[in-house]
Amino acid sequence: MAPRYPHRVTRPRRAPGGFPVVGVVGGGQLARMCAGPAAELGVTLSVLTEDPDSGAALVVPSAPVGSHLDADAVRRFAAECDVVTFDHEHVPQEVLALLVEDGVAVHPSPDALRFAQDKLAMRERLTALGVPCPRWARADTAADVEAFAAEVGWPLVAKTPRGGYDGKGVTVASSVDELADWLERAADAGTGLLLEERVGFRRELAVLLARSPSGQAAAWPVVETVQTGGICTEVLAPAPDLDDEVAALAVEAGLRVAGELGVTGVLAVELFEVAGADGGSSVLVNELAMRPHNSGHWSMDGAVTGQFEQHLRAVLDLPLGSPRPREPWTVMANVLGGDYPELYPAYRHVMARDPGLKAHLYGKGVRPGRKIGHVNVSGAVLEDLRERARHAADYIGGAVTE
Amino acid sequence: MAPRYPHRVTRPRRAPGGFPVVGVVGGGQLARMCAGPAAELGVTLSVLTEDPDSGAALVVPSAPVGSHLDADAVRRFAAECDVVTFDHEHVPQEVLALLVEDGVAVHPSPDALRFAQDKLAMRERLTALGVPCPRWARADTAADVEAFAAEVGWPLVAKTPRGGYDGKGVTVASSVDELADWLERAADAGTGLLLEERVGFRRELAVLLARSPSGQAAAWPVVETVQTGGICTEVLAPAPDLDDEVAALAVEAGLRVAGELGVTGVLAVELFEVAGADGGSSVLVNELAMRPHNSGHWSMDGAVTGQFEQHLRAVLDLPLGSPRPREPWTVMANVLGGDYPELYPAYRHVMARDPGLKAHLYGKGVRPGRKIGHVNVSGAVLEDLRERARHAADYIGGAVTE
Repeated sequence: MAPRYPHRVTRPRRAPGGFPVVGVVGGGQLARMCAGPAAELGVTLSVLTEDPDSGAALVVPSAPVGSHLDADAVRRFAAECDVVTFDHEHVPQEVLALLVEDGVAVHPSPDALRFAQDKLAMRERLTALGVPCPRWARADTAADVEAFAAEVGWPLVAKTPRGGYDGKGVTVASSVDELADWLERAADAGTGLLLEERVGFRRELAVLLARSPSGQAAAWPVVETVQTGGICTEVLAPAPDLDDEVAALAVEAGLRVAGELGVTGVLAVELFEVAGADGGSSVLVNELAMRPHNSGHWSMDGAVTGQFEQHLRAVLDLPLGSPRPREPWTVMANVLGGDYPELYPAYRHVMARDPGLKAHLYGKGVRPGRKIGHVNVSGAVLEDLRERARHAADYIGGAVTE
Repeated sequence: MAPRYPHRVTRPRRAPGGFPVVGVVGGGQLARMCAGPAAELGVTLSVLTEDPDSGAALVVPSAPVGSHLDADAVRRFAAECDVVTFDHEHVPQEVLALLVEDGVAVHPSPDALRFAQDKLAMRERLTALGVPCPRWARADTAADVEAFAAEVGWPLVAKTPRGGYDGKGVTVASSVDELADWLERAADAGTGLLLEERVGFRRELAVLLARSPSGQAAAWPVVETVQTGGICTEVLAPAPDLDDEVAALAVEAGLRVAGELGVTGVLAVELFEVAGADGGSSVLVNELAMRPHNSGHWSMDGAVTGQFEQHLRAVLDLPLGSPRPREPWTVMANVLGGDYPELYPAYRHVMARDPGLKAHLYGKGVRPGRKIGHVNVSGAVLEDLRERARHAADYIGGAVTE
């Protein structure tokens, strides 16, 4: 008899022993990278995916197709799960409110998530909390822009409050004319535009932590993130030569934000390290993300508890795992798509070149500049790790050929 | 619109970029634990499972239902895969021969696998290679048993050559009468009975390695395995106080067996450490397994490359990853089922008690004595790790309640 490829309903199937089902809205790489940790923890993952061939749908048995914008689809999906969390921040508040009304455990909660969805709301709230931020203002008109520029000088940074990622929705403007279209779009969307001073930072840092509904929190060491064209391309964990006091300041800010905003799950706080008083350094909060984040990919191999496992533990209100690094340094480099769609031969090559390399591929089609994977390398010599990670990522993506 | 839980055919779907499909025959925990590494590597896993609710079927989207004894089912399954490997050794040689005839890449090959399927064939082959084994003989009659007992003395060990695992198919006999039933069953099966001297070993060791079709091989450090009632319950990696020469001897024996038998994928060689000449130690080969093995579970968290990732790399003929340990010691303890079917509450408790613990649950129903998971802990102080691993495993399984 031939094997039955059953035409089965892909509803989440619970493992015996009382283990719960975690639903992730969105089928991108963050949902995908939860699959391994979920299997290890014994919990069932279910993913609401727009694309039946998304990276997550390729590896998760329960991956119903539906849009995060479709309230009915999200509610039906959530009804099969014990807790619902997110691959991205784009689920509308109206939809989230319906889930809460249905009695679904949503982590992070809509009340917390809105500060990751709306950068203006985030700036208002962090400022009210006294968390250091770049100077900022809301602009609805050219006059608003002129007034803020008079205060902070040109160039300045303008951000669409909602929907941006990986450098999209952000621009650096040197005159009010350059923002005419942006103001118009912001007016159409009814959101206003977020203006920020252009910070002369020393480097970018990130603090990543997880917080559970019970209030337990655990932070990984502060990392340095390197951006290229607005996309995170490299992370050094921990951030080299970081002053202990600055590190403590950063972690404290992260824990404070998580606690005050009631964040549950993983929180990433992107920071600028800037010149402080007396020649030292200080930090300003750049962005928040309430989900596993590119700046935490290093932890999958470099820490006792990786961010995807920790996120699952946090949203399930399980006790958190140790964020302790396993080796002195871990370097993460993102693989960006190039012109050549066949990754596998290049991938073989980097494996042969570097047996200590940990590659993570996202199951996504190649498009130039698209994040299609990352690599991690851990060890004792930072410069060696950076060279190895960068080379492997560039080679898999096709940016270098030797 | 409600999400579509599509009644979709669960054939393996290939990730873009030229990534292959690995088929695993059998849906147990070994197949299940390949799921995370496969997702990270970007390769697609497909599992032929007898039980639609097996541990692997719960976490792998492509899990057609069929028996490994059903040639047609196995062939149809294999036709969708680039390479076929195994969760267990029980696929009959006749079925494997058909796959080879179909042009399927089978790893390990049937020619290698038969030495893991048939302990008499294994003993003959290892002896011919000069690999040190306990004294052994084939017995078909009571007279054969008496003759062997006259040589090695009572008690002796009798093994069913095929189909045993976890202490099943093995007995220690003190007289020929005790083996009457065993001889009868062996005669019925036409296999004969394998007799072995009862080795007065110092402890049990295992060497685990992977070998690829190209002949590349990589061995993890030799580990100590602790058995309770014939079931592996604890592994210490690396084996404490192991003489360097004995370790080298063990690895050499493993590499030699892998090369001579043409093993591809992970090979586990279970060893007895015995008193050697001049007061030192020596090793004898106890058993072979040609698949990821309980003695290698520590590597999932304790080594740069875990055994499930390495097995996938090996059967795909990808370059092998580094087997280097990440920390001085890793201890693995198996979770055995107890009387209480609800694991989740106990699991929460051990997570709270030990944030550094890595738990791995198999998605299996609880039955007393059944392997339902394992835990790993890594660090610098072996006795501390043993206490933590043992307690956590016993607590999850219900053997201790405080």
